[in-house]
Amino acid sequence: MNRPFISLSTDFGSGNKGIGVMKSVILGICPEALVIDLAHDIEPFDILGGARLFEAVESLMVGCHICVVDPGVGTDRHAIAIETKRGDYLIGPDNGVLLPAASFLGGIVRVHALTNDRYMRLPVSAIFHGRDVFAPAAAHLSNGLSIADFGPLIDSSELHPAPYNEAVYDRGVIRATVIHANHYGNVFLNIRNQELHRLAKTGQTIQLNAGDRTVDLPYRRTFGEVEVGQPVIMDDDFGRIEIAVNQGSFLQILSLKPGDAVELRSNKLTVNS
Amino acid sequence: MNRPFISLSTDFGSGNKGIGVMKSVILGICPEALVIDLAHDIEPFDILGGARLFEAVESLMVGCHICVVDPGVGTDRHAIAIETKRGDYLIGPDNGVLLPAASFLGGIVRVHALTNDRYMRLPVSAIFHGRDVFAPAAAHLSNGLSIADFGPLIDSSELHPAPYNEAVYDRGVIRATVIHANHYGNVFLNIRNQELHRLAKTGQTIQLNAGDRTVDLPYRRTFGEVEVGQPVIMDDDFGRIEIAVNQGSFLQILSLKPGDAVELRSNKLTVNS
Amino acid sequence: MNRPFISLSTDFGSGNKGIGVMKSVILGICPEALVIDLAHDIEPFDILGGARLFEAVESLMVGCHICVVDPGVGTDRHAIAIETKRGDYLIGPDNGVLLPAASFLGGIVRVHALTNDRYMRLPVSAIFHGRDVFAPAAAHLSNGLSIADFGPLIDSSELHPAPYNEAVYDRGVIRATVIHANHYGNVFLNIRNQELHRLAKTGQTIQLNAGDRTVDLPYRRTFGEVEVGQPVIMDDDFGRIEIAVNQGSFLQILSLKPGDAVELRSNKLTVNS
Repeated sequence: MNRPFISLSTDFGSGNKGIGVMKSVILGICPEALVIDLAHDIEPFDILGGARLFEAVESLMVGCHICVVDPGVGTDRHAIAIETKRGDYLIGPDNGVLLPAASFLGGIVRVHALTNDRYMRLPVSAIFHGRDVFAPAAAHLSNGLSIADFGPLIDSSELHPAPYNEAVYDRGVIRATVIHANHYGNVFLNIRNQELHRLAKTGQTIQLNAGDRTVDLPYRRTFGEVEVGQPVIMDDDFGRIEIAVNQGSFLQILSLKPGDAVELRSNKLTVNS
Repeated sequence: MNRPFISLSTDFGSGNKGIGVMKSVILGICPEALVIDLAHDIEPFDILGGARLFEAVESLMVGCHICVVDPGVGTDRHAIAIETKRGDYLIGPDNGVLLPAASFLGGIVRVHALTNDRYMRLPVSAIFHGRDVFAPAAAHLSNGLSIADFGPLIDSSELHPAPYNEAVYDRGVIRATVIHANHYGNVFLNIRNQELHRLAKTGQTIQLNAGDRTVDLPYRRTFGEVEVGQPVIMDDDFGRIEIAVNQGSFLQILSLKPGDAVELRSNKLTVNS
Repeated sequence: MNRPFISLSTDFGSGNKGIGVMKSVILGICPEALVIDLAHDIEPFDILGGARLFEAVESLMVGCHICVVDPGVGTDRHAIAIETKRGDYLIGPDNGVLLPAASFLGGIVRVHALTNDRYMRLPVSAIFHGRDVFAPAAAHLSNGLSIADFGPLIDSSELHPAPYNEAVYDRGVIRATVIHANHYGNVFLNIRNQELHRLAKTGQTIQLNAGDRTVDLPYRRTFGEVEVGQPVIMDDDFGRIEIAVNQGSFLQILSLKPGDAVELRSNKLTVNS
């Protein structure tokens, strides 16, 4: 048995009635779908934060994943569906919010605009495309429609750019971007676990540069492997790299915010240079 | 295939354990039901606010819709099920909270009291009828029982009145009531989209009177069709009329709260009078 | 038809993406499972509060109930599954959080450690056992695996002790512990409804002692059976005993917090002593 799987991520806020409405629209078209909530507390209109949260679809089953962070709803921005190499469909606005997740899922196979109103809830609201465009698209894709039925192919080079790209490894240096800072004061970077392994192994130390500040970070598996109050860099639980302080706040050591640029070097290479 | 659909709206607060308990009771009786949350952050005991939120069942599939905003639980207020013209069943206390939704769904076909304890979870708690009375009723109705099996017919004229009725159109004037003011400062009225169209078309201007205050409101499709800081009246996404300010707060122009009376006139008629 | 039932309780916070991820893991293994949320707003790492909330599984269908309140994740604490006399499986860390619920469900039949990595999501994260250990265990149990397939039998006397035990009745006195105080100022005790009935019937008065303070509490069915501002002791809706003030706060009469010891006596016995 193979029930289609659909996840929902929005900036509506947990508890918003629009979430239930989207589920009803989906189940009205595809009653067998397994529909789950991934995240609804994305900061309103926060494309970077939404893109970061939406990366977690990699931990979900292959399926249709909707992301509604859509400050441009009602303008001429495209509604799109992205087919990924893993076999998922990512559905939402063409504002970059879907692209980091697409990268996590192996990259883009093809992208189509959602323009065929045969697969929309009519009349389409000017401001609630989650209900009228994205939810129906996910449900019809789950019913087996082809992505090509929804509208024209879009060249992926013409998509609105992502709010951040993957960090770049270049001769012993990783140039990275802060993509999240949580309320514990932990900082997350746009570095995939395996990319950091090119720089260092757990047990070694990594040097972080942000502007003119430098911090040495032991690369460990968990908080508890450094002393209380000491900083640590480690793999997070969703495939990225996290910087933290054992029972403390890394932001109090180094004030960073999403979008900030940082550089990481292995200490050994630093010494050699 | 036709799976029964049940929605839940309560004032328990998102995350309250009572919500999961109600779902378990439903699924224990009707395992095939599709159960979704509509709204659980209704202000405790706020019948007007609950009634307004519960109107959104019109955007859901035809099914059983439970609303638990029930300050009178444990007193002699009736528990009721309302059959609507659209084919839904609205289930909750007889305190008016179900009636605006019933009106949205085409009106009332018949109402029965829920008194047959064969279809209750026993012993019935004095204060948790959501679990013991309303959830079982929705599940048994979903299994195909007749509404008449649950208890005696109630004359709908004997129901506790709604917290607000539909606005009244009378010779070029709509007498309306504020039913919601959100945290952006937008105000919602008890006027159905199509009723406002009797007064004006989008593109025209509508005059709002509240006490001795008068505001001219351009009737447009979205915020963006007026200048930043300017007020606008438009259709909302759930069939009602919304008054807002583009990137601002209408409440700062005119302080209104749920229950307040307002009048709307087309500007042309005002000039003619 | 008999669909397996799984409930989720965590301290992740409602809206946390980890909840959706756990559901996806479960449904990937057991697509027919009915998965519902019981409680996710347990205070982080609060084992007593989590144990108290998790008792509400008694109001749910027989099934697999996961509780993730797990300050020791990543240490050598066991992951366990408890089979209860009612027929449920309680799944979570061996830190006591599962035990009050087990008592509510008739007691423990047997306990097994979850050590067989054939039934884990690999690689197992150091800090997200909800996804990698507990969710897969619940899904495989729901598919019909035996609890003995997951790892060795554990003697229940070797489990980490519960954060509180059942209150003790001894010759007209109940020695109890406060297990919850809510934001209304109501206090909940580790006394089962039927145990209080050994002391008094509704209508009688019970004397509460906390340290050197004494309060007489009418034992009634609901708040409304005492005057406004007066204290009352009553059965709560989840099988425990609740102390409240009609339209007021009992905490303002007597400051109590979870873990505090109290004694209850029937007034008649007090007079006799």
